[in-house]
Amino acid sequence: MTSRPRLTLPALDPQFVAAASTSNYPAQFKPSVAGRAKKKLGDALGLKNFGVNLTTIEAGGASALRHWHLKQDEFVYVISGELVLVSEAGEQLLTPGMCAGFSAGVADGHHLVNRSDRAAMYLEVGDRTPGDGANYPDDDLIARAVAGGWQFTTKNGEPY
Amino acid sequence: MTSRPRLTLPALDPQFVAAASTSNYPAQFKPSVAGRAKKKLGDALGLKNFGVNLTTIEAGGASALRHWHLKQDEFVYVISGELVLVSEAGEQLLTPGMCAGFSAGVADGHHLVNRSDRAAMYLEVGDRTPGDGANYPDDDLIARAVAGGWQFTTKNGEPY
Repeated sequence: MTSRPRLTLPALDPQFVAAASTSNYPAQFKPSVAGRAKKKLGDALGLKNFGVNLTTIEAGGASALRHWHLKQDEFVYVISGELVLVSEAGEQLLTPGMCAGFSAGVADGHHLVNRSDRAAMYLEVGDRTPGDGANYPDDDLIARAVAGGWQFTTKNGEPY
Repeated sequence: MTSRPRLTLPALDPQFVAAASTSNYPAQFKPSVAGRAKKKLGDALGLKNFGVNLTTIEAGGASALRHWHLKQDEFVYVISGELVLVSEAGEQLLTPGMCAGFSAGVADGHHLVNRSDRAAMYLEVGDRTPGDGANYPDDDLIARAVAGGWQFTTKNGEPY
């Protein structure tokens, strides 16, 4: 700790933002993201047009199921540790300072996997374009944005 | 340099993105941001809904004139070096890992100033909500979004 005064808005020190490890996935998919904890920096700063999370992935964890969005762009930037980006192009190791971006509507399922023996941390940004959805090429899962959250179904439209 | 293969999209190593030091400010205001260089990571990744820049501010430089946006949110996250955030609340020193956010429509003019003796680097994110404008409390300047860019006038509406 330093003796510096605590930052006040519009500045923010992420160490004072609580991390959430919850997932809105159907129960059977939750274990895949059990090692994930998100600090919602954008929300804590009062931002509305996009979200920014500072996310930690424990060793062996993953950012999400492999997925892609219909309407919303995504950006990730690695802060510490090492994460493997899995996408249709294959696997690529991202070290601190490396980034990746996923354009809305591009059918390239992606996620970040921590195959190292220590935690990794990255910033993730996503906009809030309405009418979004997510497709999951490796799982029998589809997500559609609904008022207040996400609705998950099987690819045949069966509810979970 | 390492022997690792060069990243390919959707991953990106910012070292291979060119930095631009240009400014669209009227000529008399350009010196204030002469020490600024931006790598447009979001554009390089094909993102459309928001912009992400990795920006370097040389010692003595600044991110922008002090300003606030009418429609677009902004987020900054310090990667290296030290930057002073100047806002209506006063001055706060941001070190690596600190962040700040500026909600659209909040009349709190802000910028980042490098008062240290070495370069500082930060990530900045802004959305692309149409109909934006920027107000500059310390300068006789107003910006309004127009097709393809920004139109700058004095506060009385005189063109530069």
